[in-house]
Amino acid sequence: MPSNPRVELLNLGDELLLGIRENSHLAHIGRELARHGLHLQRNVCFNDAPEDIRRFFKESWEQSDIVITTGGLGPTSDDNTREAVAEVLGRKLIYSDEIEQAIRARFERLGRTVTPNNLKQCYLPEGAEILPNPNGTAPGIWLKINDKCLAMLPGPSNEMIPMLSDQVIPRLCSEGHCRLDEAYLQIRTMGIGESALENLLMPIFDKHEGLGVAYCAHQGMVDVRLSRGKGDYSRCAIQHIAKECRETLGADFVCYGDDSIAKVIFDHLRADEKTLAVAESCTGGLLSNAFTDIPGASKVFSGGIVCYNNDAKMELLGVPECIIAQHGAVSAETAVAMATGAAERLSTDYALSVTGFAGPSGGTAENPVGTIYIGYHAPCGTWCVRMVYPGERSTVKVRAVMRALDVMRRKLNKYKVEDALQALATGG
Amino acid sequence: MPSNPRVELLNLGDELLLGIRENSHLAHIGRELARHGLHLQRNVCFNDAPEDIRRFFKESWEQSDIVITTGGLGPTSDDNTREAVAEVLGRKLIYSDEIEQAIRARFERLGRTVTPNNLKQCYLPEGAEILPNPNGTAPGIWLKINDKCLAMLPGPSNEMIPMLSDQVIPRLCSEGHCRLDEAYLQIRTMGIGESALENLLMPIFDKHEGLGVAYCAHQGMVDVRLSRGKGDYSRCAIQHIAKECRETLGADFVCYGDDSIAKVIFDHLRADEKTLAVAESCTGGLLSNAFTDIPGASKVFSGGIVCYNNDAKMELLGVPECIIAQHGAVSAETAVAMATGAAERLSTDYALSVTGFAGPSGGTAENPVGTIYIGYHAPCGTWCVRMVYPGERSTVKVRAVMRALDVMRRKLNKYKVEDALQALATGG
Repeated sequence: MPSNPRVELLNLGDELLLGIRENSHLAHIGRELARHGLHLQRNVCFNDAPEDIRRFFKESWEQSDIVITTGGLGPTSDDNTREAVAEVLGRKLIYSDEIEQAIRARFERLGRTVTPNNLKQCYLPEGAEILPNPNGTAPGIWLKINDKCLAMLPGPSNEMIPMLSDQVIPRLCSEGHCRLDEAYLQIRTMGIGESALENLLMPIFDKHEGLGVAYCAHQGMVDVRLSRGKGDYSRCAIQHIAKECRETLGADFVCYGDDSIAKVIFDHLRADEKTLAVAESCTGGLLSNAFTDIPGASKVFSGGIVCYNNDAKMELLGVPECIIAQHGAVSAETAVAMATGAAERLSTDYALSVTGFAGPSGGTAENPVGTIYIGYHAPCGTWCVRMVYPGERSTVKVRAVMRALDVMRRKLNKYKVEDALQALATGG
Repeated sequence: MPSNPRVELLNLGDELLLGIRENSHLAHIGRELARHGLHLQRNVCFNDAPEDIRRFFKESWEQSDIVITTGGLGPTSDDNTREAVAEVLGRKLIYSDEIEQAIRARFERLGRTVTPNNLKQCYLPEGAEILPNPNGTAPGIWLKINDKCLAMLPGPSNEMIPMLSDQVIPRLCSEGHCRLDEAYLQIRTMGIGESALENLLMPIFDKHEGLGVAYCAHQGMVDVRLSRGKGDYSRCAIQHIAKECRETLGADFVCYGDDSIAKVIFDHLRADEKTLAVAESCTGGLLSNAFTDIPGASKVFSGGIVCYNNDAKMELLGVPECIIAQHGAVSAETAVAMATGAAERLSTDYALSVTGFAGPSGGTAENPVGTIYIGYHAPCGTWCVRMVYPGERSTVKVRAVMRALDVMRRKLNKYKVEDALQALATGG
């Protein structure tokens, strides 16, 4: 078993090459492997033609220690992965009664009839282990030949993702290829660019030779991943260094790990037993969604209002007509009135609002397309932040949501409710 | 120039392999090529190490007619694509004063200073053409050697995307590799699985030998793409076949092309000058977002209400307390009351609602985790549909949204408002 195994990922399916769907498998599998200390070296996507599968699988298999494939295990005529891989490996395909039973049981449960097509999925290369699929019909396949490992996973994400975490990673660990514990400690930041962050933290890292440091920018955030590196730093030493980074970062520090900013806000409010509402126009439901993606969101999040016209802002949020008439629907005044209105209507302690022009049309000379106002209502006051984002509609929506969340995160940290109440009580 | 050229896409950069970011380049470039009749055969992602670039570029270049690369053209020390590719091609790198001038002009405009790093970007393989980059410093590179074409594009999407459309596709067309017009006709379906669809349409396709047919399943929908194939069918003949498919599909036919279901509903309501509101609990804003992703959404979509607790359902939507008390927040009665309440509060003609248990906790014996009720309010009546989706929270949310949209699409097609009004008027 090599100490630094070469890992390649093969994604099969024309739909990736035709641009029908993003290759979310690459991002997910790359991240999960990295988390356990395995570095994906290459990813190849190609279509289902048997000669291509044979050729590209053979190449990867010969040069790698671990090969993971996704897709092409389905019941249709263009699902050829099983056959082509078995051929390259020189293994016969064996019919598995166990798989047939699982498929029949699943179909019975769903009230569907098994077709001859479906029984294609009952074949396995000789010597392979079945990776049961609780979420679909196609089982995964695990095969170890000499020191090499092959994991063949089904294409649908809801089937592939749990199979990777629950069955493949543990097998790779027990083969000694990776560790079950986290391979790095991640510091999540927002509000500072990648190169500025590198400059800011360099004096800290310069003191620790051989420390593994990687920067990863995404959606306005930059993550710093600290790993044992060549210096072979202990977990405790890395935590100590991370703490120093946190102090240096100040308000740009979001969290350790990979919580979303919405989750950081949720945890803060949950600890204080406070509640939150959201009002949005141009972000159209995405801001609410950021909170409702958190399991148990309802303990903090009471609801959101997507008001896509002025009547809705007045009727649902009680934004005064005169404010919209004088300042416009995209203005600081309307943003604050929306936040306060949401807090009142939903009886919450906090509220966050977004109004703006996401484009492609709309906008005024003063507030061009891409202008966003964020309103924030807290027990200790209300605030508004304005920004202008270039880019197309969906990009503007995502950026506005990220920024709104970050505005709230910073205000929450800066103005503690207790301090504000204390100040009120003492007339300070 | 080959009639069916082999095209490969190489994406450089460790961040793709570490799972920090989705490989959006693949989806975009694959879609754009397919639209113009070029079929991407393979995509390879690998990191910036010069030996890997040389090896994998060489392999692709030898076996392909067209190679497109993205990334690795930047100014930093890990941007090695230019050098490695020139080496494989046996071409010297030539300094371009034209690029230097463009970089200096850009930096001056932005008030930044040119560093020696930036001037790395002035080198081009001998014989290459510059693809000017209006959105960044790294120019693209176009090189034709014998009958092979190489396009090297910068990594940032906002630079790569216009360069592909405005400079690369037209060059590929003028080389005779593709057409500027659309290469296939797509039929979008929902409500029928991929293999059932294949069985349903097979009798039609069997009559047309050599017709190009591809199936693409994604998010509950299955697309069928018809192209001229080996039979070299005319556009008109393909339209005729597509029409036959549409008739066979019945209510499972969504649209020709790639509109979302929300867009199909939007177009329907827009044509009738009707309006829509949305009320949702467990989908948490995603249903609203499906409509607000459409530019000009406000012409139909008035707003949405995300009510994450019972008080919000009563306060914002007027759901009677007795309904929630007797039937529960996750029930047919509450779903319908939410839809009707949303239509009333937002004064719209139509409303769509979703309530359910997205998990991981919640649920009852009668309505386990994954149970979703969809409520639909129309001028001609109200309906409710119940379903149970297995899977994790985010999957359940997405499925519930897709299904809610499809329920509305089907009802809209089935019960025409005019028919209903006619029936009312005549007491039928």
